[in-house]
Order: sequence, then C-alpha cells, then structure tokens
Amino acid sequence: MIHRNLKMKVLPIALASAVALTGVSSFSLSAEAHGPGNNQGKAPEHSQGKGKGGHKKDKVKNVIFLIGDGVGTSYTSAHRYLNDDPSTKMVEAMSFDPYLVGQQSTYPEDPAQNITDSASAATAMSAGIKTYNNAIAVDNDESEVKTVLEAAKEKGKATGLVATSEITHATPASFGAHDIARKNMNAIADDYYDELINGEHKVDVLLGGGVDLFDRPDRNLTEEFQKDGYSYVTDRDELLSNDAEQVLGLFAPAGLPKLIDRDDSTPSLAEMTTSAIDRLSEDEDGFFLMVEGSQVDWAGHDNDIVAAMSEMEDYDRAFQEAIKFAEEDGNTLVVATADHSTGGFSIGADGIYNWFAEPIKAAKRTPDFMAEQIVSGADAEATLKEFIDLELTTDEIAAVKKAAAGGKYTDVDNAIEKIFDKRSHTGWTTGGHTGEDVPVYAYGPASDKFAGQLDNTDHAKIIFDLLKAKVEINDK
Amino acid sequence: MIHRNLKMKVLPIALASAVALTGVSSFSLSAEAHGPGNNQGKAPEHSQGKGKGGHKKDKVKNVIFLIGDGVGTSYTSAHRYLNDDPSTKMVEAMSFDPYLVGQQSTYPEDPAQNITDSASAATAMSAGIKTYNNAIAVDNDESEVKTVLEAAKEKGKATGLVATSEITHATPASFGAHDIARKNMNAIADDYYDELINGEHKVDVLLGGGVDLFDRPDRNLTEEFQKDGYSYVTDRDELLSNDAEQVLGLFAPAGLPKLIDRDDSTPSLAEMTTSAIDRLSEDEDGFFLMVEGSQVDWAGHDNDIVAAMSEMEDYDRAFQEAIKFAEEDGNTLVVATADHSTGGFSIGADGIYNWFAEPIKAAKRTPDFMAEQIVSGADAEATLKEFIDLELTTDEIAAVKKAAAGGKYTDVDNAIEKIFDKRSHTGWTTGGHTGEDVPVYAYGPASDKFAGQLDNTDHAKIIFDLLKAKVEINDK
Repeated sequence: MIHRNLKMKVLPIALASAVALTGVSSFSLSAEAHGPGNNQGKAPEHSQGKGKGGHKKDKVKNVIFLIGDGVGTSYTSAHRYLNDDPSTKMVEAMSFDPYLVGQQSTYPEDPAQNITDSASAATAMSAGIKTYNNAIAVDNDESEVKTVLEAAKEKGKATGLVATSEITHATPASFGAHDIARKNMNAIADDYYDELINGEHKVDVLLGGGVDLFDRPDRNLTEEFQKDGYSYVTDRDELLSNDAEQVLGLFAPAGLPKLIDRDDSTPSLAEMTTSAIDRLSEDEDGFFLMVEGSQVDWAGHDNDIVAAMSEMEDYDRAFQEAIKFAEEDGNTLVVATADHSTGGFSIGADGIYNWFAEPIKAAKRTPDFMAEQIVSGADAEATLKEFIDLELTTDEIAAVKKAAAGGKYTDVDNAIEKIFDKRSHTGWTTGGHTGEDVPVYAYGPASDKFAGQLDNTDHAKIIFDLLKAKVEINDK
Repeated sequence: MIHRNLKMKVLPIALASAVALTGVSSFSLSAEAHGPGNNQGKAPEHSQGKGKGGHKKDKVKNVIFLIGDGVGTSYTSAHRYLNDDPSTKMVEAMSFDPYLVGQQSTYPEDPAQNITDSASAATAMSAGIKTYNNAIAVDNDESEVKTVLEAAKEKGKATGLVATSEITHATPASFGAHDIARKNMNAIADDYYDELINGEHKVDVLLGGGVDLFDRPDRNLTEEFQKDGYSYVTDRDELLSNDAEQVLGLFAPAGLPKLIDRDDSTPSLAEMTTSAIDRLSEDEDGFFLMVEGSQVDWAGHDNDIVAAMSEMEDYDRAFQEAIKFAEEDGNTLVVATADHSTGGFSIGADGIYNWFAEPIKAAKRTPDFMAEQIVSGADAEATLKEFIDLELTTDEIAAVKKAAAGGKYTDVDNAIEKIFDKRSHTGWTTGGHTGEDVPVYAYGPASDKFAGQLDNTDHAKIIFDLLKAKVEINDK
C-alpha cells in the first residue's frame, strides 16, 4: 500500500485507563463459559467451536460490537411487541432476546451534564474512559485515547465501521478518530485517512453515509482512499458486486434514508454488515467491526415512533447477520448494546393500558418523508392516504392540512407524528436523551464477561483485556 | 391448632400451567451454578453453603421473592444516581446492581388491554399463567390457579407475605388468595383465613397495611386469626417485641405512610422483612416469603418523584435484609423483580441533559403529605418552607398558593410535585403503567435459572420446578 499523504499525522495515543498492550500480532482468550444467560428454550443451538474456519474452540478471534443508538429498554420491548404474531397466545421472542445478559449504566463525566450524549458514551465503550459530552475518543483534558479498534489494528486485525448515519458521526467516529468536538466531521473523515497504525490506514471497511464529508472543496478523501487501494462504492449494487478487502462506501450525502423510506439504491444495515464481515473475515488475524443502528436515536429525538420502529427493524436484521456469522465461525464474540435511550419513549401513555402496533405498521413511509413531500407542494390529504394504510379521521387530516397551510416542515411532521402517537398510545418526555440503564446482549466466546450490571466503560476494558490475555496467556 | 370456622372453604386448585406436585414434604434443588451474572468486582463475597443452619450446599430451602411494584429500569437507575457519592469519580453501585441477571416481559393476556396491571402480573409470577388484568390468582376462565406460596405450604414450608400496601392488595393477594377481581379486598382477607392447606392457614406471616379489611362490621378476622394462635400486632414496637411464628401485623387502616412520612409507630419494609424472616426461618422445612415494595407504583401513578424515591429506598433496604439473610443461610434463593413500570418516568425531560437528585433529596416529606396539611388549613408557604430544604422561587410558592386557594387536594399536590419535576428534570407520560421489560435480580442457589430474558410467568415455573426437582431428584 502506498501512502500518498506526506503530511500524515503521527498518532498520539494517551492510553488513559486501558491496559497496556504489547506488539504481538493477534489476540484470543480462552473463555470459560459463553452464550446467553438463559435461553429459556428460545435460543438457536449454539455452535461455537464448530466453525468452518477450523479455529480453536472458544477463542475470541473476531469481535462484532453493535451499538443501537438510543436503543433503551422501551425500544427493544416495543420492537418485540410490534413483531408479535397475534395468532399465538404468547408474544414471540425477538432476535435479541436469547442473548440478553444484562444492562449497563451510561452516565458521562461532563462538567455541565450528567446525561450522556453519543460521543461520550461511544468513547466510554471504545476507550474505557468517562469523558465529556461531545468528546470523540479524547479524555477530559482533550488528550487522545486509544480505542479498541485501534488496538485491534495494532494486533494486525482487519477493522471496520458501519453505520446508517454519516460514517463520521459521533458513534463510529469514537472508534476510528479523535477530536475535541463531534461536530468536526471533516476532521474526523481526515482522521480516518491520515491517522495510521503501523503505517496503514486504521479502518479497512467504512460503510455508511456522508459523501459530503469525504468529497469536499478542500479535499477529496474518496480519491485519496482509492489511490491507496481502497474501492469506493456509492450505491447498493456497487457494494454488493465489490469484494475488495478495503472499501469506502458512502451511500448518501449525510445520513442514509430510513429503512422504510429507502429505494433499491441504498443498502440496508444488514447488507452493509454482511458485506463488511465478508471482507474483514478474509484477514487471518481476525477482525474488529463496529456496527451502529444510528437512526433509532434520530427518530427518538424527533419523537417519531414510526421512524423508531423502522430503524429498530434495520438494526435487528444487522444483529441477526452478526449472530449468523458468529454461529458459523465459532470464534467470534458479538456484543450489542446502546449508548443511552432517547426521547423518554414509553409503551403506553395518558393513562391508557394499551400500546397498539397496528397503526405504526400502517405507515409505509416515515412522517419525515411525508412532511417533506407536503411542504414541497404535494397535497396533504393525498399524501397521507398514499402512505398511511389507515382510515384517517377528518380531525387527523385537518390537523395536517392546517400545519401544511403554515408551510413549516416541523409543524407538518409533528402533526403526522401525533396521529401515530395518539393511535398507538406512545408517550415521549423529551427531545433529548434519558439516563436509565440500557440492555446488553452478547453471544460467543467470552460473552459471559458482559453479563450482569456493567458500566459503559466496561465494554472497552473487557475487550482490551481480551487482547492482553492473548498476549500473556494464550498466544501460543 | 384449632380451626374455629366450620364453614372453611375447600381450596379448589386448578393447576393450569404449572407442573404437577406430589405430596412430599420439602424441596430443594442441586444448583449447578449460582450468584449474579457478573459482579465486576462490586459484589460482596457470597457464602452459599456456609450457612449456620448446616444445610447442604447449594440447595434451595428457602425462597424470598421480592416485587418492586412499578420498579422499571428508570426507577432502579434513578435510585442509583440519587444515592451517588458526588465526591467520587464513578457512580457507586447500588445494592441491587451486583445481582442483576436479566429482564422480564410483563404483558398480560387480557381481552381489552395489552399493558399489565399488578394483579395479572403478580398472578403470572405466582402461578405461571397469563391472565386478565384484575385477576387475583385466577385464570381467564376465572378458575383458581395454584400459587408458589400454596405449593410451598403444601410441602410443609412456612409462608409469608409482606407489603407496604394493604396486605390484601393485588400483588400479595395473588400469592395467597383467589378472586375474580382485585377490588374485592374483604374477600381476599377472608381467603387468607378461610382457605386452608393440609388443614392449616396458608400464610403464616402477614405484615402490611389494611386493618380496615380485617376488622370489619361483618367480620373480625384479627380476632379469628388470634383464636387460631396468631399474634396480632399493630405498631412497630409490638412487631419488634413479638416473636410468634404466626403473626398478623396490620400497621395502617389501608396502605402504610411512605418512608419519609412515617413516624416511629410504623415499621419499615426492611423491619417487616427481617421480622418475617426471623419467624419463618424457624421452620425446619424452609419457607417461602413474598415481599412487596408496594408504593413505588403508587408514587408513579401520582407522577411524584419524591415519593417514588422514598419508596425505592424502603424497598432497597428490605432487599438488603433479604440478601443478608441469604448470605448467612446459604440455602436461600432471593429473586427481586418488578411487575411493570409506572408513569412513563424518565431520567431527563424537555430536552435537558441533566437529572438532578438534590432537589428530590431536599424534600423531608412527600408532596402528598404537604398537600394534606395545606388543604387541612396549614399555611401553604410555611408548609413548603418547613418540609422542603430549598430556596423556593416566588413563582413556585405562588403556584402552590393559587392551588391552595382553590381548595382541591389534587391541585395542591400537583403544584408541589411540579416543583420537583422541573428542578430535577423528571419526565412522565402517563398516570398508568407502561409496557417495557423490567429488571430481574437474583442471588443464591438456582439464581442462574433467572438469568437472561424471562417472561413474568417464568418465575413461577422455575419455582414450581424447584419443588418438582426436589421431589424427583434431590429428595433423598
């Protein structure tokens, strides 16, 4: 690989709280136990150690770390109820359920706020430290801290970041870049290219949104990456027909459309995840992959239950792909958790003891999508009838029409969202984040280490420790 | 024991979904593993099998089942943050944390509602069946279903119910009585006396509120119980100075005052729990005890964060007493969970990334208590200043004064509650329950069986299974 950028930054690593790492080139850990805490007969048969790759049983060779941004307990529970088969007596387990192992606390260490943002939380999970809201893998003194992705790359592993937000957004950025402020997404894109580990780019697979952060007036990183041997793909077909081990895939100017708003040109999170795994698993030293279901959080900020459930579905399918690979591989640890919950979303509201999924499932597009059409000139009533498979009341239609007459996108969006909130009995308390603990799911070797009550910093500590353990104990 | 009531009901047991039980007189199970999922160095040393009673290691002789009514994840997380020592960098673990093993789903099987009430949820946990909201240990066809308390009594174990609500309220009732409707609290009190197992009253220790349900114009159950050998105690001193193995303790006409509103005459939930354990542990066959932190839910319905945190503290201390006994005993399984969450309570609201505990801790009494004083004629401003250790703004005082001028208790209560909501940034979405999964904590032999994702019916199934296992496998 030829490094064309002669002004490459030296990567300063302030290894604040994590364990010291040596230069040994691979890691694994002999896990004493593994698998979910209690399957209650619902889990598929596990097959660790029976992997096609012939790896030694119960060694952690690969780590797939999934973050559902904003995916607190209310979201996972709602997702289960939304997918229930009403013809059966019991509610069906959702794909995450067999792997629940515990919860984690999410608080930041911020001088002014005690509820976390996504940057601080992702830095906790990537680097094992508490830091301020807004921090991208930097400590409270703004010094850069090593991330588990970087540690994996130091060990010679392949690495990847996958998201439905800009791939430079807070969560993926906190694994593959360093910045004092999450808003500096150009600088974060630069980091992905400029910060080298052992002379190589530290992220081999970058899939998500954010063309505008890479192809800029001042710099075109898509060309720079290609000159260094990366493939560059910009739609679903290109992604699926390409098998380069190093790839930059950017499928939207900023964030991707939401699952139910996408056309065929946009890959799903599951497709990006599978594509990433296919490439990364070619590396004999193993891989570290972070996958983010980015936009559950965005939907939560918007208090949009339709969009939230759309993005839960996208995230769920990606999780299933990760589990499927791990089951076949036998040496892959899968962890899925959230950075925080968002919106104060509640299943039930206003004293009603029902939460109805049918009205939510009746939406063929998000309220955002419909509102955009309406403020762009589409007829309000016709748009609602085209994209909502419900008999809307005259009051519901009138409320959207009234908002449309005002011409403000936000008002139209809110009026449409209110239809679903009222019909489903969905509650919200905030346009921001909330501070309750979030669920943790794990599968594969060493998954037992994630069980019980964790703090968000524990994830990085455990993964760093897996690296260390190999170095000291199992690298033979 | 002499049974004076000649019209004793024959107890019809429709053992709907639970395992069949034989008549063998004690149970235990050889637990393959135990203890919390992952202590992360936070848990105390476990000492199962080193119990003073000399019981065989890892046998379940006693079960203490704690239910925090309404205690969803937001409540446990908030309780942790409220008790944080701000002088340390990390947030301290709360007493429940080391024992977190998973979550459970709470949905009922009700023809009209899909969010559970306390009766349906408690019946799920006591009898292992899904039923309608309002059902006290009866199935959807209104047939009575056997509870784990009854099964334990059949095995010759001592049994107890402890709550801060009326002891006839939905949760305890669903373990020790049967009724088609939770509101029939007189009939539920009658059941405690009239329904016999092997010729004996099925609950040996009944501690909580509800004098008015037992001492009635039509019947005085306090006398009937005493004639059958029970002690009857009505205040804290009487409770603590009495050591009868069978006791009825009723400490208020209905529910007990909340922890921060109590005077010395009212025992705490911890004191009632310890008192119950002291008595029940005298039985050589072991015991089953259900302890309910009843009024977190009531506070949630009222959207009262001060009362909610008061009752979380009361519940926490009772949990600690249960753990303390189990650590010393070595043969005691402790499970703590919730029936549902309440109020749509969120840590953070209105876009603010902070939740402040200090304003909540500044309340020396609940808003209910203050509102009662004010509508009874006390000066609003003086009352607020007496019981709230904050510099209240003129607007806050004016809002309460305005409500007081209207003379409506609810308005005064709401105005006081709003002070704490606004200052702490607490959000609420409903005066009812919400449908998200709730945490599960477990300690002791067989605690691993409660790990992972459970349904509320699993608790009873596992406990019934522990009974069965002893009968078939370990009763030797």
